[in-house]
Amino acid sequence: MRGAVMYGPRDVRVEEREEPRIVEPTDAIIRVSAACVCGSDLWPYRGAEEYEWPVPMGHEYAGIVEEVGADVRTVKPGQFVVGSFWATDNTCEICRSGYQSACVNRVPMGALGAQAELLRVPLADGTLVATPDIPPDDLVPGLLAASDVLGTGWFAAVAAQAGPGRTVAVVGDGAVGLLAVLAARQLGAERVIALSRHESRQRLAREFGATDIVEERGAAGVAAIKELTDGLGAHSVVEAVGTHESMTQALDSTRPGGHLGFVGVAHDVSIDGLGLFWSLAHVHGGPAPVRRFLPELIDLIWNRQIDPGKVFDRTLPLDEAADGYRAMDEREAIKVLLRP
Amino acid sequence: MRGAVMYGPRDVRVEEREEPRIVEPTDAIIRVSAACVCGSDLWPYRGAEEYEWPVPMGHEYAGIVEEVGADVRTVKPGQFVVGSFWATDNTCEICRSGYQSACVNRVPMGALGAQAELLRVPLADGTLVATPDIPPDDLVPGLLAASDVLGTGWFAAVAAQAGPGRTVAVVGDGAVGLLAVLAARQLGAERVIALSRHESRQRLAREFGATDIVEERGAAGVAAIKELTDGLGAHSVVEAVGTHESMTQALDSTRPGGHLGFVGVAHDVSIDGLGLFWSLAHVHGGPAPVRRFLPELIDLIWNRQIDPGKVFDRTLPLDEAADGYRAMDEREAIKVLLRP
Repeated sequence: MRGAVMYGPRDVRVEEREEPRIVEPTDAIIRVSAACVCGSDLWPYRGAEEYEWPVPMGHEYAGIVEEVGADVRTVKPGQFVVGSFWATDNTCEICRSGYQSACVNRVPMGALGAQAELLRVPLADGTLVATPDIPPDDLVPGLLAASDVLGTGWFAAVAAQAGPGRTVAVVGDGAVGLLAVLAARQLGAERVIALSRHESRQRLAREFGATDIVEERGAAGVAAIKELTDGLGAHSVVEAVGTHESMTQALDSTRPGGHLGFVGVAHDVSIDGLGLFWSLAHVHGGPAPVRRFLPELIDLIWNRQIDPGKVFDRTLPLDEAADGYRAMDEREAIKVLLRP
Repeated sequence: MRGAVMYGPRDVRVEEREEPRIVEPTDAIIRVSAACVCGSDLWPYRGAEEYEWPVPMGHEYAGIVEEVGADVRTVKPGQFVVGSFWATDNTCEICRSGYQSACVNRVPMGALGAQAELLRVPLADGTLVATPDIPPDDLVPGLLAASDVLGTGWFAAVAAQAGPGRTVAVVGDGAVGLLAVLAARQLGAERVIALSRHESRQRLAREFGATDIVEERGAAGVAAIKELTDGLGAHSVVEAVGTHESMTQALDSTRPGGHLGFVGVAHDVSIDGLGLFWSLAHVHGGPAPVRRFLPELIDLIWNRQIDPGKVFDRTLPLDEAADGYRAMDEREAIKVLLRP
């Protein structure tokens, strides 16, 4: 089968890979209908993370179950399914508390390479959620988004306690940040401030429900948010970048007693203890427990209450994955969908 | 009047200070019944913080109102009152959200010097809470504790979401940590692990409701807490020290999705962003909004449901304040009460 493999920074190739097979009786094999390139895939692409090259790529996926292991009970061949970027048992104490991304038996899907025709999904019962039926084609991008980028933006908004009566600021105008805007509005926030200086991203932020756009960054961005919030800072701030600058900006934009939800994979981020102390902010984030939200998100997408698929502004055949990475790296595309 | 003044590291003197007077119409003057030495007073005492010496000392106080300004409505001369270590209006948006320690009009009481016979309290209506009557002498230490050390331990336990069904670990066996143990039990936690290697502090921790004692520190302390919690870490962790080591230990002891409440004044603490990301912990802390809890705490003390005054294991006349600092610095005393 065909699959994307990264051989080193800026070197993505689509090549023949061995077909995955059922290894554990809890596995499923799915035929990938759609996969995509994640903002986090750009870290190794840019050389910011070391790997033992080559590595198969991709951890976001939606597709049709081909085969299941002997112990799989809740999904069956022929069903359209969405899963998270962690395979999880969904039964351990941590999963039951809503933190499936720290499941005691978790397996990172990234290691299995979802940018491919076929994908082995471990712990299928705990990982995959089937849609009510085979979706119409126009719903596939949205369902794919639920796998990570929407689920992550949603978690960030939940971690930031976005909701009625609260002003939410979103630092980061990548796909996760944009979908955090959508999530914040869905969760009831009347005012959502998107930080962006890119016209096309600003437009999408407004489509997703942003009420204010701030173009400034750093200290000027903080000042702009304070000006919009009676000098106090936002009740809820989402950090969806993962740099020291963005985390600092996000923390400084949070009012005392407010909530900062962060989901950018931290790179060279260090938080000063005394700054955190005086901020009196609540800080929560990390790898999103997407599985917690999947049933609800699939429902919202299926019923056309939200359209997170808009975040994909480019669709390429899997064979052109390399161009998808390049387009996202150069910020030419917000998010690239790959069709195997 | 007599008052304690720090002239530099390890140089505390009790000397004649000018009597405080009503400056603003919202001020009150109280005759201090009891004051005390705070763990945070030890930072400058040990030379870990720079000041323009000399500085009056003390920010914990309980006493009898002598005089009030023209605009004071809720407290009156003759009442016994307790206040927080921040004077706060208790009416601004931040106060109303429960974060009085970040009141937009706050005044640090430390600058006014509560280790003295008389004390000016700005924003008296928002700061002071009167007891139902003049308390019997044996309740005074407990009421004094509410002013900071109990209120701070309580906030830490609330920030860590201590409660029914949750295992709470408390890092730090100073007075704040010990009272966080008391708070965790009051809030409903059945299991409270106190980290301490000092026999007298272990005893008090058990009196306050600790169910387990862990003597190990650092990585060994983390391992011991994990062993007590099925390898997962505690649901709730209180950090009440303020060093990089204690913060690291506290974070590493928190299970994914768990809550870390920190109240130790951070000194050279730096939190690694990626570590925080993967921890999936909730982190919240800072200067405690004691005013939020004062009415409830005074009630519990007045009705003899809790006895936080036990944390004072030494009482000295104000004139011997220097010996009180020394005794706490050398960990000879847990907390020293000063009687003006």
